[in-house]
Amino acid sequence: MEENRQVLIDSLPGGKLEITNYKLHQSPVPVAGDGEVLCRTLWVTVAAGARAGLQGSASYAGAPKTGVVMNGAAVATVVASQALGFSEGDLVICNAGWQDYSVHSASVLQKIEGSVDPVHHLGVLGTNGVTAYFGLLDIGKPKAGETVLVSACGGSVGHIVAQLAKLKGCRVVGTAGSDAKAQKLQAQLGIDAVVNYKSPDFRQLLKEATPNGIDVYFDNTGGDILGSALFRMNEHGRIACCGVVSQYDTSSPSPGPKGIPGLLVNKRITMRGFLVFDYKERYDEAKKQLSEWIVSGKLTPLVDEVIGLENAPDAFVDLLAGGNIGTRVIRVSE
Amino acid sequence: MEENRQVLIDSLPGGKLEITNYKLHQSPVPVAGDGEVLCRTLWVTVAAGARAGLQGSASYAGAPKTGVVMNGAAVATVVASQALGFSEGDLVICNAGWQDYSVHSASVLQKIEGSVDPVHHLGVLGTNGVTAYFGLLDIGKPKAGETVLVSACGGSVGHIVAQLAKLKGCRVVGTAGSDAKAQKLQAQLGIDAVVNYKSPDFRQLLKEATPNGIDVYFDNTGGDILGSALFRMNEHGRIACCGVVSQYDTSSPSPGPKGIPGLLVNKRITMRGFLVFDYKERYDEAKKQLSEWIVSGKLTPLVDEVIGLENAPDAFVDLLAGGNIGTRVIRVSE
Repeated sequence: MEENRQVLIDSLPGGKLEITNYKLHQSPVPVAGDGEVLCRTLWVTVAAGARAGLQGSASYAGAPKTGVVMNGAAVATVVASQALGFSEGDLVICNAGWQDYSVHSASVLQKIEGSVDPVHHLGVLGTNGVTAYFGLLDIGKPKAGETVLVSACGGSVGHIVAQLAKLKGCRVVGTAGSDAKAQKLQAQLGIDAVVNYKSPDFRQLLKEATPNGIDVYFDNTGGDILGSALFRMNEHGRIACCGVVSQYDTSSPSPGPKGIPGLLVNKRITMRGFLVFDYKERYDEAKKQLSEWIVSGKLTPLVDEVIGLENAPDAFVDLLAGGNIGTRVIRVSE
Repeated sequence: MEENRQVLIDSLPGGKLEITNYKLHQSPVPVAGDGEVLCRTLWVTVAAGARAGLQGSASYAGAPKTGVVMNGAAVATVVASQALGFSEGDLVICNAGWQDYSVHSASVLQKIEGSVDPVHHLGVLGTNGVTAYFGLLDIGKPKAGETVLVSACGGSVGHIVAQLAKLKGCRVVGTAGSDAKAQKLQAQLGIDAVVNYKSPDFRQLLKEATPNGIDVYFDNTGGDILGSALFRMNEHGRIACCGVVSQYDTSSPSPGPKGIPGLLVNKRITMRGFLVFDYKERYDEAKKQLSEWIVSGKLTPLVDEVIGLENAPDAFVDLLAGGNIGTRVIRVSE
């Protein structure tokens, strides 16, 4: 009989996350009860935000626990259904976590339709793409001709934000963690400049890349990049606070950036934190628009596929060190 | 012949401001040229924001200079006019600075009309009151039943904000720098609680004073109070960043508060800096409404009058240590 491979959280990270914080486990394949569906995972996400969950800093995610399957959204295929509306072979989105098989109540499953590659439902047509859409357009409110800075512009959210800002007619500058990655991203995303935030000259490079200052900063990182961006912000600038990846993979977060709130006052800056869940009622609007841009070739979502469930912990550690370009997913089965 | 007493900025403060940073100077009474008006100062303001100007941190104020008359808005009486529309005895508002006499182009003078005590044009009907009005109502957007925290609630802006928030049906909590001042303000402003931010138990006291969390924080101080308030903010809370008085009287500003931007994201908080000058076109609306509330007894502006121009430096040092209640003005002449 087939086994269900699972990646469990074995211990909570003390400092930086290590692959030894996880362990591989085998359990029986679960059985779908009445009104439930058994799913086999095709792809599952490896997402920076999940590191905040392990830290307990993402309060909406609840307290972190050990001995449970690591969480992650998945694209899965229905193997057996005890629920109306789902049959074998259907493609669904579910919170499978890092494992081969999972059982879900039909009410929380979302069937995948349409012609776009299903893997994109974990990226540009999933939470990350919708986050990029509302965070940039509703919170950042960029106008044509303005300068938009996007930190972690190679990330799952960031690489969509950067392209959407270009679509809106903005000068777009990103940050990334190495010169090589910066060069690659600048070419791949078709944006104006990508600056290596680890360079000792980062502030100077950022200044040169934003000759007209920054009107909108889409902040995925917090920390030093936020601190530097504040000094380049223009009057009436907007900072969309989306994530704090610089502070996730540590047990000793930095103090907040200097210049808060002084620079906010002098430059009349608005900083606004958001969670995409607050836009639930408008997800369809975003997904429809994003799909159209993909189909018409205006938006190129990048997928960074790692093969094999057993490689998920390593892929996560590497992602937190900036190893990914685009949405990182684990290919669990064909 | 009468002399014009002036308080000059003699040196820029290195650390905390001292009265020796000023010197008293005598110069001849100036003469009004064509289109100009000679004014004699009745009251001149001593305002915390002017300390930021001496530091160079209020970028809109230009670089600080020595050898010039200390700046400050004044209520003055016209002594001689070479301009149409102004005659001897008229009461005007002008940027006289800390001196007995000053000459102004008629175009920048504002005549005082109406029945409200003219000194209030330096407080509740001046920049400070208008700041309180737009900062609270436009940026903070309090709703009845919400909790509003106001730092420096004994200050010229803060004591108006606290009362306006009460008028809007909110639970209102303030901070002040001593137990005695806190008790006095709580009674005088008719608000729900005032907490001493210098207490070693400040965080606990703030928690007890805000059992339902904080929906709107009107921030006059930045620093530790902002840091503590962030942890008490409710989801979708608003922080109106008005001033940073905790960081003005020093040459080594603190780092920004922890939890930025993490708490902003998790709680979907909006932090917005503002300068009242951006509301210039709506000043009349604010002044009309504030006047109505004063006349009907719903709003009690507090004036903290210090007698004698020579006492201005001392009054300013004391104000930065929290010695004032309400708008501090210097009575320069009768």
